[in-house]
Amino acid sequence: MKVEILPHERIDDLQFKGLRIIQNPLAFCFGTDAVLLADFALMRKAERVIDLGSGTGIIPILLAGRAEDARIVGIEIQEAMVEMASRSIRLNDLEDRVEIMQGDIRQIPGVLGKGGFDVVVSNPPYKKEGSGMVNRMAPHAIARHEILCTLEDVIRTAADLLRNHGRFSMVHQTDRMLDILFLMRKYAVEPKRIRLVHPNTERPPNLLLVEGVRGGKPGLHWMPPLFMYDKDGRYTAEMNRIYHREG
Amino acid sequence: MKVEILPHERIDDLQFKGLRIIQNPLAFCFGTDAVLLADFALMRKAERVIDLGSGTGIIPILLAGRAEDARIVGIEIQEAMVEMASRSIRLNDLEDRVEIMQGDIRQIPGVLGKGGFDVVVSNPPYKKEGSGMVNRMAPHAIARHEILCTLEDVIRTAADLLRNHGRFSMVHQTDRMLDILFLMRKYAVEPKRIRLVHPNTERPPNLLLVEGVRGGKPGLHWMPPLFMYDKDGRYTAEMNRIYHREG
Repeated sequence: MKVEILPHERIDDLQFKGLRIIQNPLAFCFGTDAVLLADFALMRKAERVIDLGSGTGIIPILLAGRAEDARIVGIEIQEAMVEMASRSIRLNDLEDRVEIMQGDIRQIPGVLGKGGFDVVVSNPPYKKEGSGMVNRMAPHAIARHEILCTLEDVIRTAADLLRNHGRFSMVHQTDRMLDILFLMRKYAVEPKRIRLVHPNTERPPNLLLVEGVRGGKPGLHWMPPLFMYDKDGRYTAEMNRIYHREG
Repeated sequence: MKVEILPHERIDDLQFKGLRIIQNPLAFCFGTDAVLLADFALMRKAERVIDLGSGTGIIPILLAGRAEDARIVGIEIQEAMVEMASRSIRLNDLEDRVEIMQGDIRQIPGVLGKGGFDVVVSNPPYKKEGSGMVNRMAPHAIARHEILCTLEDVIRTAADLLRNHGRFSMVHQTDRMLDILFLMRKYAVEPKRIRLVHPNTERPPNLLLVEGVRGGKPGLHWMPPLFMYDKDGRYTAEMNRIYHREG
């Protein structure tokens, strides 16, 4: 094997076009929300795509599987994650069209220029920076809490990176929906498409998938709800489709 | 019977605490959305309630059934509807605590004063004033289209009528959600509680029930989704509960 695997790391099969990913369970593993976002984001022909906060690289890898002519950049601030994600890219022979770059997303428009992307995606930290954290610099803390960037940083950066009429897709928690919609409009990324994710048909939605269009006109399209589990606690057919699994 | 029924009118049994309502199918009958709103609105002890755009009077009547110590005012601009709704109030012996007033909602804060209500509810016209209307002054057109008041008129009026921390509940179409949330914040009625209504589990939500609090702090509570029909096209148990029917 041409790619090195470090102690504590493992290789997971994504069950989609032979794609695999390296993860370190002691640091941070990707979650369902990243997989949902990679399914939700609309992908057209030969687009330039950027993922803000790539972590393991799961979203660039899944999008590369979906859109074989896309050129994808993943931005990740944590050196160790960049290194591991880059090995996952090589593991999948995606080096010619997927690149993981180390950087602070707030500085990326200054580095890569404004308006150069057709698509921006992000599965950002969900939690407001808060109290009671044992180690603010632990990889999972940085991935989950707004320690190194806020929701507004993510949305402002997305707006800066998008070409006119480019699309920004994000996954976040439903309790932040108002903040998200207000910030998107503040930075001229008009919310155009929404899908809510519920644990099951009985429960309120807990995740929000939203796509906005830079400079788009108002007009919101609602997708059918996504239910993760059926009454027996098994993945629904839609979740099996998204995970590319047999139902 | 002490209440007169005019030609083309009928009396419908609301199947709830013996309440009934007079309707004229040639003019306008109340819809499911009004019944959903009357179920959704939070009612506490002995509150002062106002309904903006009462039509047949369905919402004041249902709320009077739910909260027996509430004092309720319904505002309706169409004289004929005010007259018919007032007969429904008498039909139910509710004259001592429910009043239907004729008026333009935009002028009501000037008439009744600002800040005098604990609860404002509204099932306003949904459709932007548009093209192709045969008769802009037909009762059903006024009830369904923003001919005599806009969404912003309704929300601004609600904000003016509410006491500090009073609650505004509205039903509207999901495609207007952004407008609704932005206007509520514009007039300092913070959206606090949301319930989405879907035709069934397969379909996107088409109706939005939202409650905002005058001067409230940000923080959105999502309720479980409401599905109107099951797979066989029958009302769900939740809809039967709302309609006070046996399942």
